Amino acid sequence: MPMNIALLGYGTVARGVHRILEERVPDIHVARVFCLPQEVDSELKTSDFQELLDTPGLSALVEAMGGIEFPRQCILAALERGISVVTSNKAVVAAHFAELAAAAEKSGASLMIEATVGGGIPWIHNLERVARIDEVSSFSGILNGTTNFIISQMRRNGAEFGAVLAEAQRLGYAEADPSADIDGIDVWNKTIITASLAFGVDATHEIPAWGIRSVTKGDLEALDAKALTVKLMARGVREAGRYAACVTPVILRNSTMEANVPDNYNIASLTGETIGTLKFYGQGAGGDPTGNAVVQDLIELSQGYRPQYHLGSDVVWEPRLLTSDWLVRSSAPLRASDREVVPGYKAIRAVDPVEAHAIYQRLLADDPDTFMAAVPQDLI
Amino acid sequence: MPMNIALLGYGTVARGVHRILEERVPDIHVARVFCLPQEVDSELKTSDFQELLDTPGLSALVEAMGGIEFPRQCILAALERGISVVTSNKAVVAAHFAELAAAAEKSGASLMIEATVGGGIPWIHNLERVARIDEVSSFSGILNGTTNFIISQMRRNGAEFGAVLAEAQRLGYAEADPSADIDGIDVWNKTIITASLAFGVDATHEIPAWGIRSVTKGDLEALDAKALTVKLMARGVREAGRYAACVTPVILRNSTMEANVPDNYNIASLTGETIGTLKFYGQGAGGDPTGNAVVQDLIELSQGYRPQYHLGSDVVWEPRLLTSDWLVRSSAPLRASDREVVPGYKAIRAVDPVEAHAIYQRLLADDPDTFMAAVPQDLI
Repeated sequence: MPMNIALLGYGTVARGVHRILEERVPDIHVARVFCLPQEVDSELKTSDFQELLDTPGLSALVEAMGGIEFPRQCILAALERGISVVTSNKAVVAAHFAELAAAAEKSGASLMIEATVGGGIPWIHNLERVARIDEVSSFSGILNGTTNFIISQMRRNGAEFGAVLAEAQRLGYAEADPSADIDGIDVWNKTIITASLAFGVDATHEIPAWGIRSVTKGDLEALDAKALTVKLMARGVREAGRYAACVTPVILRNSTMEANVPDNYNIASLTGETIGTLKFYGQGAGGDPTGNAVVQDLIELSQGYRPQYHLGSDVVWEPRLLTSDWLVRSSAPLRASDREVVPGYKAIRAVDPVEAHAIYQRLLADDPDTFMAAVPQDLI
Repeated sequence: MPMNIALLGYGTVARGVHRILEERVPDIHVARVFCLPQEVDSELKTSDFQELLDTPGLSALVEAMGGIEFPRQCILAALERGISVVTSNKAVVAAHFAELAAAAEKSGASLMIEATVGGGIPWIHNLERVARIDEVSSFSGILNGTTNFIISQMRRNGAEFGAVLAEAQRLGYAEADPSADIDGIDVWNKTIITASLAFGVDATHEIPAWGIRSVTKGDLEALDAKALTVKLMARGVREAGRYAACVTPVILRNSTMEANVPDNYNIASLTGETIGTLKFYGQGAGGDPTGNAVVQDLIELSQGYRPQYHLGSDVVWEPRLLTSDWLVRSSAPLRASDREVVPGYKAIRAVDPVEAHAIYQRLLADDPDTFMAAVPQDLI
């Protein structure tokens, strides 16, 4: 049925949403756009959020601003008025998922979050769909296109990290401040959201995360000589009432599908008891793919769909479920028991990701170029 | 809401459905099972289809029998009585999609077909979901687990086709009569269904199809020396009011995701205008994954979902959209213009798949071991 919506923010994603709706979805109409005062250049736009909320007949709001505290207030204000919210903002959902879900539950409005993880990949939708039949026992994924682009280009062209990062920034695949991407913060937000949905829990912010800032051409060559490579990955596992999750570089065989995910694409996998392993691949960012994900949420809202988030299970945090070996290159001193497994690389055996993160921080203090990656299988 | 259903057939898939429903979906109850007279061993089972249709309060029927004509009659009879049908039978849907869809349309009952393509992969669901926003411009996929298992094992173990086929039969991945799998008939059915949904057309049965019966260890080694491999693939494309589709072996770079799909897994891809390329990976067969797909359809039925099939667009069949080069190994005579590109292999340049199929048939008549695969990109 016809629906009036408002856009909060008018960046790449919101403009993608606006264009897709105008070209392809006649029943959903953008009635108002919230933006900065200096951007108000038409009747459609306003910089007054209260005025926007008072738009007659407004049934949903698309939040695509970024940031945390201001979007949180906007989302809560809309939900409290019974206006549904579709957001592409992973930071605000990761920071306040339980609060936002409770506000939606209370008011009867809907909170839709497809676009927060995996861009155009229908990851949230399919994860929830699987979970209605199966218990999801694990997930993993390459959930950041910028870092996958950097590693792909380094492997293909034998280039160094800095040169490829600069190229990614030129192409618009990386931000001027790339830290959220290359230090794993973006993936950390997506991992909190995914773990929450997959395991039915308000996932802890203790989930450890680091990125690929220190990976070198030499690292990739040393791995490739053993038919291995490295990717920045989210991982989560549930077992017997406990769960763990982490974001780290991971060593993979070259013959895996993940090792061959090209350019700025993403892949996300889950394993359920009867469905087995499913993988979903696509563009993890960009105005059109992410805009498409927002539009899918809006169409589902217009059809009366209402998600229900169950974040209250008594599954408990247990990082030891992700205990593994770790490959390390560092000029900082390691323990005598950490043996060299490849010239220039040592293995730290059987450490959980929280402890591994602490070790990594200590090594970084001595050698800021330290590289450390999980070795989840018996590969080194 | 609670729903009574009947199962037609009680093989691997139907037993998977029954088990998943009993363990996980309390609202959907198996009220009756249709089977052969000699299999009737409880009150639940009957070999009288009319009696089964008269089961009080029956709202859906799961058809998992195989075959074409008898299931067609059963599906039509159920739909005419307003009983919805969920089928995993790709052969009957491929043969009679428009007729079955029209019967559902007329009676107001639903026809659900998730389990006909890709087993546990939510391919049909996601394809339809994408199509509600985007025009799907192409699809492709590895849609047969048996042949993917055979090629994977041949590559990994350097084994010959016959030995791996025997192993696949022993593991239950291949039928005693393997022709439907290895000659591409199974994928042909899935391609007709996929093309129909992707392009909104009652897809023609002229879609050409052949398989991988003649691939040898030597072929895989010759390709691997060039960092290439071969997979049996479905492909379809739509452009400017025309469409094409085919099922053939396809030459791929070793660094593609498709080349690295392991064992008996499937992968299916689509490209849409705003979403870009999406890929879906999982178990393409088996009682639990395929049973899970049937159960997803049943849950959607129980929530009042009703699919609408639009098979009447005026897109016309034009196989030249899939014109490509073809790699051939044959002792039969080729044209003088078909040059040797790899020792023992010639390239036939710029031929559409219908013409390629005719050439392949002619070569097979002279040399039953002829191997012929599409080369969609500039790889040889």
